[in-house]
Amino acid sequence: MQRIANLLVIKNGQVLLLKKPRRDWYVAPGGKMEAGESIFEAAVREFKEETNATPIGTHLKGVYTMMIQENDQIVDEWMLYTFAANNLTGDIFEETTEGLLEWHPVGQLAFLPMAEGDRTNLQFAANRPGIQYGTFYYTPEFQLIKETIQSSTEEVKHQNG
Amino acid sequence: MQRIANLLVIKNGQVLLLKKPRRDWYVAPGGKMEAGESIFEAAVREFKEETNATPIGTHLKGVYTMMIQENDQIVDEWMLYTFAANNLTGDIFEETTEGLLEWHPVGQLAFLPMAEGDRTNLQFAANRPGIQYGTFYYTPEFQLIKETIQSSTEEVKHQNG
Repeated sequence: MQRIANLLVIKNGQVLLLKKPRRDWYVAPGGKMEAGESIFEAAVREFKEETNATPIGTHLKGVYTMMIQENDQIVDEWMLYTFAANNLTGDIFEETTEGLLEWHPVGQLAFLPMAEGDRTNLQFAANRPGIQYGTFYYTPEFQLIKETIQSSTEEVKHQNG
Repeated sequence: MQRIANLLVIKNGQVLLLKKPRRDWYVAPGGKMEAGESIFEAAVREFKEETNATPIGTHLKGVYTMMIQENDQIVDEWMLYTFAANNLTGDIFEETTEGLLEWHPVGQLAFLPMAEGDRTNLQFAANRPGIQYGTFYYTPEFQLIKETIQSSTEEVKHQNG
């Protein structure tokens, strides 16, 4: 089963997005986990590879079950781990083999062309406290069929131990 | 790839653990995710099935890459999602087909017999803020070979958007 980790940097009210050439859709930098990596290691490594920069303050914001459905049959299922960071260090590539790297105001996440499930999880990552969970059903052409979402925030704990 | 979700309830300084008959090792209630479930849905469903109770305040505390290594070869890899909750409602089974359900003081997580990687992640879930990530390498008999761990906490964000 495929595992994908991506990472959204939110800094000074702007987010760093990768514009992919195929559909001109925006994504957060990321890619496939390698065997034996933690999801955190994968997100940071992929971000560095795609941007040339190192994220700071990296924290998990979402874990999603991704279902590809064709003619009422599930044809693929994988996991997506979405991280946020609030800073970075290093000079960012402008153009990469994956596409163009661009800063956009956070509010543009509502309007930029992207997969509709990505819109849900990137807006959560940028604007909301806690962690989001859910399942996205897509067509093979990445049209969103349905999504179910949960979220939680950590409560202050008073431990005796 | 297998995906396992488990859930540790921490209430009044005690944790609810399942004592499995095979090795008399303690685990947090949990089990295998089903196709299309979110990790949150799986953790809550498995907890209900194994305990008869419903967790309250469920929140993700750890995501782990699990590697089984035999004679220097990786023979299996899966994902473990560990949740915590700070309360529950309903009457808990005493004994189930999976084993015995027992409350223990949080501090006993350091001493009770269990897989050593579980000790790492359950102590984090019970005692520390934020989210833990990591990779555990085990023998097929669940002796821990090595672990690598990262963690993060959510920083207060000041958004313009």
